Amino acid sequence: MPVILTQNAYGKSKVRLTKVTRRPDRHDLVEWSVDIQLEGDFAAAYADGDNRLVVATDTMKNTVYALARDIDLASPENFALRLSEHFLAKYPQVSTAAIAIHEQAWQRIDVDGQPHPHAFIGSGPERRVCRVARTRSGPHLRAGIEGMIVLKTANSAFRNFHHDEFRTLPDTDDRIMATEVSAEWPYESTSVDGNACFDLIRRTLLKTFAEHKSLGVQHTLYAMGEAALAACSAIDEISLTMPNRHRLPINLAPFNRTNPNEIFVATDEPHGLISGTFRRQ
Amino acid sequence: MPVILTQNAYGKSKVRLTKVTRRPDRHDLVEWSVDIQLEGDFAAAYADGDNRLVVATDTMKNTVYALARDIDLASPENFALRLSEHFLAKYPQVSTAAIAIHEQAWQRIDVDGQPHPHAFIGSGPERRVCRVARTRSGPHLRAGIEGMIVLKTANSAFRNFHHDEFRTLPDTDDRIMATEVSAEWPYESTSVDGNACFDLIRRTLLKTFAEHKSLGVQHTLYAMGEAALAACSAIDEISLTMPNRHRLPINLAPFNRTNPNEIFVATDEPHGLISGTFRRQ
Amino acid sequence: MPVILTQNAYGKSKVRLTKVTRRPDRHDLVEWSVDIQLEGDFAAAYADGDNRLVVATDTMKNTVYALARDIDLASPENFALRLSEHFLAKYPQVSTAAIAIHEQAWQRIDVDGQPHPHAFIGSGPERRVCRVARTRSGPHLRAGIEGMIVLKTANSAFRNFHHDEFRTLPDTDDRIMATEVSAEWPYESTSVDGNACFDLIRRTLLKTFAEHKSLGVQHTLYAMGEAALAACSAIDEISLTMPNRHRLPINLAPFNRTNPNEIFVATDEPHGLISGTFRRQ
Amino acid sequence: MPVILTQNAYGKSKVRLTKVTRRPDRHDLVEWSVDIQLEGDFAAAYADGDNRLVVATDTMKNTVYALARDIDLASPENFALRLSEHFLAKYPQVSTAAIAIHEQAWQRIDVDGQPHPHAFIGSGPERRVCRVARTRSGPHLRAGIEGMIVLKTANSAFRNFHHDEFRTLPDTDDRIMATEVSAEWPYESTSVDGNACFDLIRRTLLKTFAEHKSLGVQHTLYAMGEAALAACSAIDEISLTMPNRHRLPINLAPFNRTNPNEIFVATDEPHGLISGTFRRQ
Repeated sequence: MPVILTQNAYGKSKVRLTKVTRRPDRHDLVEWSVDIQLEGDFAAAYADGDNRLVVATDTMKNTVYALARDIDLASPENFALRLSEHFLAKYPQVSTAAIAIHEQAWQRIDVDGQPHPHAFIGSGPERRVCRVARTRSGPHLRAGIEGMIVLKTANSAFRNFHHDEFRTLPDTDDRIMATEVSAEWPYESTSVDGNACFDLIRRTLLKTFAEHKSLGVQHTLYAMGEAALAACSAIDEISLTMPNRHRLPINLAPFNRTNPNEIFVATDEPHGLISGTFRRQ
Repeated sequence: MPVILTQNAYGKSKVRLTKVTRRPDRHDLVEWSVDIQLEGDFAAAYADGDNRLVVATDTMKNTVYALARDIDLASPENFALRLSEHFLAKYPQVSTAAIAIHEQAWQRIDVDGQPHPHAFIGSGPERRVCRVARTRSGPHLRAGIEGMIVLKTANSAFRNFHHDEFRTLPDTDDRIMATEVSAEWPYESTSVDGNACFDLIRRTLLKTFAEHKSLGVQHTLYAMGEAALAACSAIDEISLTMPNRHRLPINLAPFNRTNPNEIFVATDEPHGLISGTFRRQ
Repeated sequence: MPVILTQNAYGKSKVRLTKVTRRPDRHDLVEWSVDIQLEGDFAAAYADGDNRLVVATDTMKNTVYALARDIDLASPENFALRLSEHFLAKYPQVSTAAIAIHEQAWQRIDVDGQPHPHAFIGSGPERRVCRVARTRSGPHLRAGIEGMIVLKTANSAFRNFHHDEFRTLPDTDDRIMATEVSAEWPYESTSVDGNACFDLIRRTLLKTFAEHKSLGVQHTLYAMGEAALAACSAIDEISLTMPNRHRLPINLAPFNRTNPNEIFVATDEPHGLISGTFRRQ
Repeated sequence: MPVILTQNAYGKSKVRLTKVTRRPDRHDLVEWSVDIQLEGDFAAAYADGDNRLVVATDTMKNTVYALARDIDLASPENFALRLSEHFLAKYPQVSTAAIAIHEQAWQRIDVDGQPHPHAFIGSGPERRVCRVARTRSGPHLRAGIEGMIVLKTANSAFRNFHHDEFRTLPDTDDRIMATEVSAEWPYESTSVDGNACFDLIRRTLLKTFAEHKSLGVQHTLYAMGEAALAACSAIDEISLTMPNRHRLPINLAPFNRTNPNEIFVATDEPHGLISGTFRRQ
């Protein structure tokens, strides 16, 4: 039976890279997980098992480590751009090289008030992310955050939403808002200072989340997107996804106690999921 | 600062639904996790915190349980179609309702060679999936499998792939192939028999994986896609994603032992990741 | 400051072992995760960094692979006994060698009604476990099951339990009982047929769970323990742990629907946790 | 068949408790997961399904929320002591009440250099733990840390360990040491200041990890235990468990590059696992 292969891609995921840069006064530590996906002239491997043009995914892994030795890992953006360039330059059969890097952040251990020069403590589930999709026409660069867990105990209402026979949730003027922010934005230019932009956008998202007088998750998500675009001129677009990690007030009336918005249960399932993409006008 | 909201969606994820149908001779058990995402006239909730058109995600959850009482859960496809229809029929502000259902399979416990009428044992991580995206123009229906873990110990080679200075992997004629198959396919018609098609496609994928003389993961993935299209006339397209869950032969030479393709270590990271989409010609 | 090291142990965990036995008519596949912990004369490594008696955990890993080549992996019990014997025989500084093996079960893929000779499909989270703790006085052997997920939709009540002002749960005559059984039992003799005993005990636990008229999780746990001891004369003791994976009935009254014990929500948190140990009298 | 129930216990696990204390200048946030296990006169529930003395695990959950309203959650130790006291005082059939509390830490979001009064960011996988086991003779109190992920890039050697034919690991003078510290210690007195002790012990463990000139994981674990006992007079014993989360140097020679202890791969499996318990002499 004749079939058409309308899309194909392959690569290596979760190549874990640690690099230590040993400076006179301190060590710098980078830990990344690198994903590679190639597209191109690979149909023969699928249809006929002809692997002659196939760059083994094991070879891709080797390439990550070899280039990590050659290149200063100043930012994930820089390395993703260089790595994608390598795959297109070296392999004419490749039409697109997509790279994703997830960064595990480490903080220096505080010893007697001083950051230690070579000892680190792991931070949480939050990951800095960058993505490059490079074709023969050039690269597209995106960056973002995953897993930034935040919660606020004031300035969060949700009221006057649609009412019908399936609604049981009451209006509330003062609820806990908890979420795990994912954000992603394209950079217009690949010569952007990725580290400075990331820090600025992250700081802006956190500040806006903290200070916003929220009328709903959508409302706060909008404020955060708007603030990020206002803060960072290197981006014209940002997408945000925020699950609603509910903290439900406990009914203590059966136990002859009031609950003045004080005792809650956290639930993981089910959860709301709200997203939006914003562009500078 | 003026921003444009270029995309927005919201909904409820992981609404866990259990339904027991109590028949005279046996109980039937369905366990699904239902995700809902709505798009439509919701910009005011984002920009202004005006929630009047917002159907609370809690209301969506309630709707799942109420409709699950009304509707025979004969197939996830049927329920996803009905649920999406409900959201568009009831709420004029909704332009698109996207439903995803993941099914946790249960098998009857075998007691003395007989399937028990009301006791069940959980199966593995494999999930049957269905997705409906319904607009005012009608529904699009897709189905699939996630997490089907398979392994073969023969008829799997990988050789004659590209050679350059970053390659260290040798050719092999006889390796273990292990993967976790994800497959997804659109149905041309929403009146398809989802249960019969799912069973046929799943069985075909497994049989092809088992019997194929593989020259690489791409080669087997192609054979599986081709066989699924050949087997099931209700589909014209199928996408497959197959990570390569490597089993690496252990070098026993340092311990004065041979390893005649017998002793391996399984690794989760890094892993190959191969995908392809096939259409009937 | 003088301190006393009152306990110490070290070893290697999660040594993943795959062994393929290639028979004329079929391949047999074993996948185990092996944990090793040694105790003995290792205080100098702790107190002074004197590693001369330390067998590196990397060496333990190598040993697993080398011995797996030498030994027929007929049962995890057999291998754990042999491996623990090796560590005591070879290293006089070792006083105790504790081995744990978790087995990932694979089933042959069914192709046209026949089990395939060399293609396998992964089963669920259930793991067969065995543990050996061997001292210079000899080995202690235990076996068990982890993660056996079962559910029954009938013959499960929970009523007449203690009533006080913190109780809100009503009596029920007909609830869903869902749990994830963990069981573990010591063997009196190390020459036991581990495979036969495991199959018999597992089958007995499942049958008893299915057929028991339950008045509570404790009641069913007791019946299962009692039945296992009755079925298998090779054991005199068994411990069972069963979380209560609640399926809560949904109140559909707000939506003008009855719920005749038909629609439920599964919750993971919080969960009951019930355990008991039984001995033959 | 007569069997003896030699051990039994039951309770509720993962009761998730959030409490917000609204002070004039700031909100305080506590998020705990509470586990309860009761032992006592419950054999009739097992043997006969007689539940009259059984306090439902749902009732235990209710009790957590009700008492959390009554009690200032100044420390997990205080609440665990009070909660265990409640179960013994209220239920004569209870002989032992075991409580475990895992604390999810939240940090105030830094906005323009100031900690925000009511917005928080989640920290990592690290959990503060406390455990109370209370019998009619009184309580035993323990506290600890789980999941504290640390790494150092200098002052870590592992050499001169045992050599035999299964050893392939070379000596190293300068390796990365990475681990996930678990620590637990009993308190002599239940009137201890749990918050101050926890902070002191945690700070001491981190400082010692950072500054120690390590000859092996055992060596550093000893130094950490010794330092904790020296720092905190409220404890006489501490147990530490530290997996060895290996960072393996990559061999870049096949790619004509040196690797001057700079490029590594992190592996999760297999991992070393080292433990020790220390007592003040």
